[in-house]
Parts: sequence; structure tokens; C-alpha cells
Amino acid sequence: MAEVYAARRERVRERCTAGGSATALVTRPANVRYLAGAAPRGAVLLLGRGEDLLLCGSPPSGEAGEGRPDEAVAVRVLPRAGGDPAVAAADVAVARGAESLAVEEHHLTVTRHRAIGSVAPRLRLADLGGAVEQLRVVKDEEEISCLRIAAEIADQALGELLESILVGRTERHLALELERRLVDHGADGPAFATSVGTGPNSGRRGHRPTDRRVEEGDFLSVCLGATYRGYRCEIGRTFVIGTSPAGWQIELYDLVFAAQRAGRESLTPGAAYRDVDRAARQVLDSAGHTEGLPPMTGHGVGLEIDEDPQLAPAAMGKLDACVPVTVEPGVHLPGRGGVRIDDTLVVRPEADGGPELLTITTKELLAL
Amino acid sequence: MAEVYAARRERVRERCTAGGSATALVTRPANVRYLAGAAPRGAVLLLGRGEDLLLCGSPPSGEAGEGRPDEAVAVRVLPRAGGDPAVAAADVAVARGAESLAVEEHHLTVTRHRAIGSVAPRLRLADLGGAVEQLRVVKDEEEISCLRIAAEIADQALGELLESILVGRTERHLALELERRLVDHGADGPAFATSVGTGPNSGRRGHRPTDRRVEEGDFLSVCLGATYRGYRCEIGRTFVIGTSPAGWQIELYDLVFAAQRAGRESLTPGAAYRDVDRAARQVLDSAGHTEGLPPMTGHGVGLEIDEDPQLAPAAMGKLDACVPVTVEPGVHLPGRGGVRIDDTLVVRPEADGGPELLTITTKELLAL
Repeated sequence: MAEVYAARRERVRERCTAGGSATALVTRPANVRYLAGAAPRGAVLLLGRGEDLLLCGSPPSGEAGEGRPDEAVAVRVLPRAGGDPAVAAADVAVARGAESLAVEEHHLTVTRHRAIGSVAPRLRLADLGGAVEQLRVVKDEEEISCLRIAAEIADQALGELLESILVGRTERHLALELERRLVDHGADGPAFATSVGTGPNSGRRGHRPTDRRVEEGDFLSVCLGATYRGYRCEIGRTFVIGTSPAGWQIELYDLVFAAQRAGRESLTPGAAYRDVDRAARQVLDSAGHTEGLPPMTGHGVGLEIDEDPQLAPAAMGKLDACVPVTVEPGVHLPGRGGVRIDDTLVVRPEADGGPELLTITTKELLAL
Repeated sequence: MAEVYAARRERVRERCTAGGSATALVTRPANVRYLAGAAPRGAVLLLGRGEDLLLCGSPPSGEAGEGRPDEAVAVRVLPRAGGDPAVAAADVAVARGAESLAVEEHHLTVTRHRAIGSVAPRLRLADLGGAVEQLRVVKDEEEISCLRIAAEIADQALGELLESILVGRTERHLALELERRLVDHGADGPAFATSVGTGPNSGRRGHRPTDRRVEEGDFLSVCLGATYRGYRCEIGRTFVIGTSPAGWQIELYDLVFAAQRAGRESLTPGAAYRDVDRAARQVLDSAGHTEGLPPMTGHGVGLEIDEDPQLAPAAMGKLDACVPVTVEPGVHLPGRGGVRIDDTLVVRPEADGGPELLTITTKELLAL
């Protein structure tokens, strides 16, 4: 793994040098972890001119959830109450003779940026922009295998829930039970707050579980994900409670299923992000569901649950092979509920069999 | 409650006007919630010159965990893919004729700050600083009663855990079970990631639960908290597993207990933050535990779990009445484990009986 981290840091250094800065300061936690192997709380990474340096407020714990720092990176733990590691890093950059420092302006607050400027008034502060986020879009096979395991764990947790009795239990309890099962099966933890929605709450994106209990005749939507070695996946399914779904439920489910399939089938290397979004969206649009649709059909996943690319109407760019994304269209009818279906897939060329589905729980409409 | 929110917003307006800006933009979620009653994801609050306006990317859900917007605040939901609500708010400020806008520079990123500047180039951007955070330090009785309920919930969850069998269970399972019990007892959710540490992991601040199982003879430290109507409390206790604690365990426990008591007893209106810290710290220092002590003895709690004030060696300022804080000294001996004892208390004048202890679980050394 050491070479992998070193190669990633080398690419960031090349980008900086091309942009006129020989030195870069990475502060966004997922970016620090991507480049250094671990991101203890508050840690920042200084790259270029001398050895790569991870500055932290407390020593790395070495726990599975946090990752282990790459051995080629020097680690410096600031003394107790040593202040902001980013400011300390700027100090080091100056001591090493740097004239310019590229920082992550989309992550640093105005106050921190100013503090760096005051400790190092002669240092020219440039913008690293989303350089590290862009590197993170295409995953290597090691990363994809972490995502695959994360998806297996989420499938297992969801599968076990479906075997239990659901009627009468609250959204909150179902969500907590799913999170316990994720950990049972080896997850570092949930990838995001598990969403469970029943009846009128079903089908709402990011719905926070309430005390509403599952009733006969409800739609039940569940969205969960596991984190495995830092990598986060996502799966969402909608079920119907009781022996026979109503006509409107079958119709709505079939529609969202068709939209989700259209989105999945459009995942090929070279496809424009917005075309994947449109493939799914136009199925819903043409059935008259133009209002209240989510702003995007899917997004990248990796060290963060919601990372580049966005599969949205105004997104610019094209898919590459080895990019994992979600495809998660949904429709919510106010007062009645709705349907969401959400998979994590990896874009693969057709010669390799097309998109690789990581979350394999069935998408038939199950009546539970 | 409506008058409470209006009065809070009026105080912010006064602070802004005194600072030369008649208009303020509040972006930090806990600050938005404090002033507007609710903070839907990404929502920002524009104050001054015309009605107070809450701008959100999606409609407020009205769920318990999110709060309900104060009716005196106008709510504007941006159209789908409507961009950053903070930028939209700056647009409104300009349309209302504002010349200057005070923003939260410690919360806004450089990139967002710049986007506001570009959409409104003639608007002078000032710094609101921690004005809202400072208002939040002293709580009203309504807020304290939410904290009191949050503490009761945490006490109940912890009490039930102590009645169950612990040996052989992993840190992760114990943490998840505690979180389930918090929700069982009516919490919106955990106030922060529950920490459970056994054996060599015990006594570490912020320890992330691992798969280590509880063994006979271990110290077991637990730190958890509930959120109730947005308000977050914290409790931490250390227990010993088995029938009879070892001599070093009793000695270490008594020491940390004495330090924690000294901290609690120094909580009076007018006491300097650093003196509370010193009261607890010097007990540990004088026993030779100068290395590896946590950077602070305690901190404020409220809408965030870690808010002002900090009870730390270099902290400036004095306690007021009705300020809820934690007192949480601890000692961790590498390879052996340690002890942490953590309470949430409200500062009260001696005439009112002195500090009010919210987390009432016993601090005797229990052998479980």
C-alpha cells in the first residue's frame, strides 16, 4: 500500500507545481486519509519541499476505523493546546523556504485561512481547489474491494431485517437495529445515518426516522450503508407491508424501478453525468412526476458517502471506468408515501460485463 | 417560545448595528437553530432590514429532531438545484438595500465567502465573529430543562446497561446497545458517538469502540449522551469488572474522583474558566500525572456537545450562572488503562444550592 499512497501524493505535488506552488496543505479529512493512509481528528498533511508531514493534535490511534498512517509520512503530534495544525504546517512550510502554499479554500474557513496568513505573511496562499477530490473519483481495485465488502455487509444487514417481524415497530428502532447489524457483520460503522420511512414518510430522501410504527398496507423504505476500512456504500429499497400491495403501490414501484434500471443501464465509460441523470429522470417526468423529484439521481461514493461526481441535470463531465456511483431515483407523494430504489455500482466497460452491481439485494417488490 | 427567538434575534441585530452592519447572515447550523427554532439541512438565516428570513435548500420537515421554525421568521425554499442558500441570502440583502453584511467567518469557507462576494460585489462583508455562540453560553430555564431531560435519559440508558452481563461483550456492541437505549427512552438520538473502552482502552478520551471484549479485572469506561429537542448532555463513568478491584485501580480511581470533585466544587458564578481547570488538574499533577492529561477539564454543552466555554489552562473568561458545563478529568496509563469521570452540571449561585448536577448516576467505584 505504501507505494499507492506515495504515488497519490506525487500526483498532487505535480498538480501543485504546475499551478505554481511547490508546497500544498491538505486539510479536508477524507483527502488527508486518501493521501496519508489515516486522518486522526484534525490532522493536516503538508506536501512538497522535504518529507511529507502529517501534523496532528493527538497521536494516531491506529484503530481500524481511523486507518494507519503510511510509513513514508512523518508524523508530528503538536504539544497539548498547540493550536491549529494547519497554522503549524504553514510555519513549517516557511521554515523550509516555501514561497507559496496551495490550500483547500473550499474546506478552510475564512478565519483559519486568515490565521495561516498572519503566521506566514510572506507566504503566498494559492488555491489547491478540488485537486485531491478529482484524484479520488477513479478508484483502484483495492478501494473497490473495500466498497464491495461494505456493500456485502449492508446487504446482509438488510436481509436479516427482512426476516424479522416489522409491523408495530418504529422507524427509529428499525434504523438502530440495522446499524447494530452492520457492526455485527464487521463494518467500522454506518456510512451515514440510516433512514427508515413508513407510510407517508416512505420514499423521502434522507428522511430521519421518527416514532411512527410500521402498519399493514404501508410502503417501507430503508436506506443504509456500511463503512469498511473507511469506504462507504449505500443501498436503498422499498417494500410493502402486508399480503397484497394496492394498485397505486404496484404502479409507483414499477415506475421507479424502470427509472432506476434506465439509470443503471446508462452507466458506461464516456457517458455524460447529466445523461445518466436524464435517463432515469425522464422515465419519472414522462409519467407526470415533475414536481418534488430529488435534485440528483446519484453521486460518487468512496471515503465520503457523497462525493464527486454528481449525476444531476447541470453536472459537467463524463464517467470513467472504475468510478463507483449510486443510482437512486425516487418519488414521494405528499401524504401517501413513495418509493426509492438505490444501488451502488462501479462503472465498467461493456467488454468487462458492464456496470458492476455491488448491492445485490433483490429489487422485486417484496410484500413483507 | 416565539418571543424567546425574537429576543435572541434582536440581540444579534443590536450587536451587528453596534459593529456597523445592519444586516447579518448566520450560517452555522446550531446558531441558525438557536435563532430561528429550526435548522433544516443547509439552511441560513438573514437578519435585519425587513423580515427575518430562513433560506433552505429543502422544506423544513417539522420533525422533533430538527425543530420547528419560529412563525415570525419567513421561510424561503430555494428551487431545485438553486445553489448555496448563503449566496441567495446575500442577493436578498442587496435587494433590500444593505451596504454591509456581517457573516460568520469562523464557519464560512473561503470559497463560499468568495461566492458571496462575487454575487454582491458592492456589499461590504464584515465578520459577525462568535456573537451568536456568546449569546448561547448562558441558557434559559427552558433550555436547561431540555438538558435535564437529556441527562435523565443518559442516566437511564447507563443504569440499564449496568444491570446486564458485561463480560465477553465487545466495546462496539456495548456502545450500540447504549445508543439504542437512549432512543428507547425518548432521545432524538445520541449526542455524540458513544465511547466504550475496556482494559488498556479504558480512560481514553474519545476512544472509538473496538472489537475488544470485556474481561474480568478490566476497567470499563463509558461516555455517552442524549440529544433532547436539540440539546446535548454528556456523562462518563468508569467501572471495574469482577469482584475485587486491584490496588492500583482503587488508587487511580480515588485520584480521578478527587480531581473531578475539585472541579465540580469550583463551579461558581464568577470563577475563572482556567481556575476550574486548575482545581481538577492540580490534583492529578500533584500525584505525578503530568503527561498525557487531556487538554481541557471540561466544556460547555447545549445545541452542540462541545461549545463555549472551554475549561482549559489558557481559557480567558469567567463562569456565569446558568452555564451548563462538563467536568471530565481522566488519566490513562498506556498499556494498562485508566479512569475518566464526567458529569454535566449547571453553574448556580451558592444561594440556590450551588452547581446543579444533571447526571446523577453514582460515582462510587462499582465492581460489576
